[in-house]
Amino acid sequence: MAIEIERKFLVVGDAWRAEVSRAVEMRQGYLTQEAGRASVRVRIAGAQATLNIKAAVVGSVRAEYEYAIPLADARELLDTLCVGKLEKIRHYIVYPVSDPGARQDVTWEIDEFLGDNAGLVIAEIELAAVDRPFVRPAWLGRELTFDRRYYNHHLALHPFRSWGGDAS
Amino acid sequence: MAIEIERKFLVVGDAWRAEVSRAVEMRQGYLTQEAGRASVRVRIAGAQATLNIKAAVVGSVRAEYEYAIPLADARELLDTLCVGKLEKIRHYIVYPVSDPGARQDVTWEIDEFLGDNAGLVIAEIELAAVDRPFVRPAWLGRELTFDRRYYNHHLALHPFRSWGGDAS
Repeated sequence: MAIEIERKFLVVGDAWRAEVSRAVEMRQGYLTQEAGRASVRVRIAGAQATLNIKAAVVGSVRAEYEYAIPLADARELLDTLCVGKLEKIRHYIVYPVSDPGARQDVTWEIDEFLGDNAGLVIAEIELAAVDRPFVRPAWLGRELTFDRRYYNHHLALHPFRSWGGDAS
Repeated sequence: MAIEIERKFLVVGDAWRAEVSRAVEMRQGYLTQEAGRASVRVRIAGAQATLNIKAAVVGSVRAEYEYAIPLADARELLDTLCVGKLEKIRHYIVYPVSDPGARQDVTWEIDEFLGDNAGLVIAEIELAAVDRPFVRPAWLGRELTFDRRYYNHHLALHPFRSWGGDAS
């Protein structure tokens, strides 16, 4: 098991695009409905496929298990057994170590959602500890870490566009 | 993906025990609730652990995906994230090729359920084709292939003992 410590934020404007160093298209879906203690996700990212299990708790710290699976299996699972699906482009922005206390680069993952979740752009940062400080880029909007509606599992089952365009 | 073609039956009496060639204890649980299109199962069988995804359809033919996972992960998943759990001893009975048309041995898997499902003994046979004939051992009771109540996923969430002992 890995413990995922993550904070997520809305992204404001388009200035972030100039800082992207690489991007990958992701297609994912879920084998679980909303109830239950865990989400089970099938994801194709570029040519890699994974099965991921994550505790269905709201917050910045979640237990997570991830296993590589054959790409052909992932395609079939997405086409036949997944109940919620979404597509997005994940952009990576890397800030090199800046302050003396930082031991490694900081990577932001910017998810630009497509399809029924188009219009939504979310930034995530993984942290070594919940209270670890980080520099806030100018394009960072309000924090979503504790808002269950913005979890990918929720977005797959209740797409952003069905909300009536209200991201506030 | 594998296609699982399987028929299952109640087991009558104890005569089958004399024919068992090996047995393994299994502990398993599910990451999915009853609704949905698939069941996601975590199983520890002896020292092996697997994650298994099976289409939630009733009948003898089901799509199935199975992946080995670390034993430590399986233990954690069973202890923390699984919503339905069960334990059983799987006994194997192998009949060597007998009729000229048979190309290989026939293996029966006899699941002797423990805990809240104690009292239930189910025999399963995997077949190369739905209509493939097989010899019926004397201890074979009525067929359960199309009875959803006897699916392990259902038994994990609604144990046999909660039925009031009615296996008919």
